[in-house]
Amino acid sequence: MSKGKLIVISGFSGAGKGTVVKKLVEKYDYSLSISATTRQPREGEVDGKDYYFKSEAEFRSLIDYNGLIEWAQYVDNFYGTPRKFVEEEMAAGKNVILEIEVQGAMNVKSQYPNAILIFITTKDVPTLRERLTNRGTETQDVINKRLARAAEEATSMESYEFIVVNDDLDTCVDAVNSIVVSESCKKENVTEFLIDIKNQLESLDK
Amino acid sequence: MSKGKLIVISGFSGAGKGTVVKKLVEKYDYSLSISATTRQPREGEVDGKDYYFKSEAEFRSLIDYNGLIEWAQYVDNFYGTPRKFVEEEMAAGKNVILEIEVQGAMNVKSQYPNAILIFITTKDVPTLRERLTNRGTETQDVINKRLARAAEEATSMESYEFIVVNDDLDTCVDAVNSIVVSESCKKENVTEFLIDIKNQLESLDK
Repeated sequence: MSKGKLIVISGFSGAGKGTVVKKLVEKYDYSLSISATTRQPREGEVDGKDYYFKSEAEFRSLIDYNGLIEWAQYVDNFYGTPRKFVEEEMAAGKNVILEIEVQGAMNVKSQYPNAILIFITTKDVPTLRERLTNRGTETQDVINKRLARAAEEATSMESYEFIVVNDDLDTCVDAVNSIVVSESCKKENVTEFLIDIKNQLESLDK
Repeated sequence: MSKGKLIVISGFSGAGKGTVVKKLVEKYDYSLSISATTRQPREGEVDGKDYYFKSEAEFRSLIDYNGLIEWAQYVDNFYGTPRKFVEEEMAAGKNVILEIEVQGAMNVKSQYPNAILIFITTKDVPTLRERLTNRGTETQDVINKRLARAAEEATSMESYEFIVVNDDLDTCVDAVNSIVVSESCKKENVTEFLIDIKNQLESLDK
C-alpha cells in the first residue's frame, strides 16, 4: 500500500476552512488530525474529538519528547499537532488533513517536504467581510481584528503551493481533492511504477 | 475570462487514450484538437470531424506558413496539429486536448511551456498485451510491433509531468481532469488574483 499524503490547509478566518475540511472528511474519506491544547474545553467539546485537552505539564512533556509536529502559543494557551496520529494514519495509507495557521504550516513543510500546502480564500475581501459579519456572533471590533489578521496572513499566501477560492463549497472541496489526486499522478511520485513497467517492457525484447 | 489550458495526452497503444479523451470531452467539456493529415479518409471518416484531410501541397503550405504546432511523417503520410483551432479555443477560455505521439508532445511543450503533459498507461504490461489481443483486429505480428513500440515510448515517459494509469476508465478520466483543476490552483497560475486580494487587504489598513 502506498503511504498516505499530508495535506496542510490554512486560510483566512471567515473563508470557510472548517466547513471545507469537514466535507473533505465526509465525501473523500480524509483523516483529520486533532490538535492538542491546554485551553479549557468549551461546553459540548469532547476530548479526543474536538481537541486533546492537556494540562500545561503534559503539553510541555509532549514538546520535550518530540511528540508534536508543530505547536504555538496564543495568549495563554498552547496548541499543537500530535505526531503519532499523523504518522500512523499516513503509514496506513490514509491522507491526513491538518488545519493549521501559517507559521505551523511552514514548520510542517520543513519536516515533511512532500506535504501539500493549500490556502483557502474567499474570492475577494468584501465577501470575507460579509461572511465574518453574517456569522452574527462577532462584534465590529472582532471583525476588524480578523480582517487585520487576514492582511498579515496574506503576506504568507505565497508560501503555499496552491490557492483555492471557496466561492461554491462543493467546487472548493472538489478542487482540494483534485490537488491531492493530481499530486499522486506526478512523475516524481510514481518512480517505482515507472521503473517497473520499463523493466517489464524491456524484458519483452529478450 | 482566463485563458484555456493546453493538455497533451500521449500513451501506449492499447492503453485506451482514445476512449479517455472521448469521455473527457463528453463529461468535462474539453475541446478536442483535430489533426490534419494527407492520408486517404477511411470509410465513414468525416473531414473536419475525424481529421482535416489535406493534399500534400496543402499540408506543406501549412508547414511553411507556421500553421501547424507540430507535425510528423509516418510511412508516406503526414500528420499535424493545426495552430488556429488550438489558439482560438484557448483564447475563448476552453481547455484543449491534443492526443499526440511522444515527439509531438515535446515539440508542443517547447512552444507552450504551460502545456500539461500527461502519459496514459495500463497498470502493467500483461494488461497492455491483453487489451491489444482482445481488440481481435490485430495479428500477433502487429501486437508484437505495438509492444516493441511501447518499449521505445517508455523511455520517454519521464518527459511527461503526469502519469495516469487507466485501470478503471472513470477513475482515469477524473484523474486527468483533477490534474487540470489542480494546475489552475497553483500559486504561479493565480498571481493576478494574489496581487489583487493583497491590495484589497492592505487598503483596509488606511
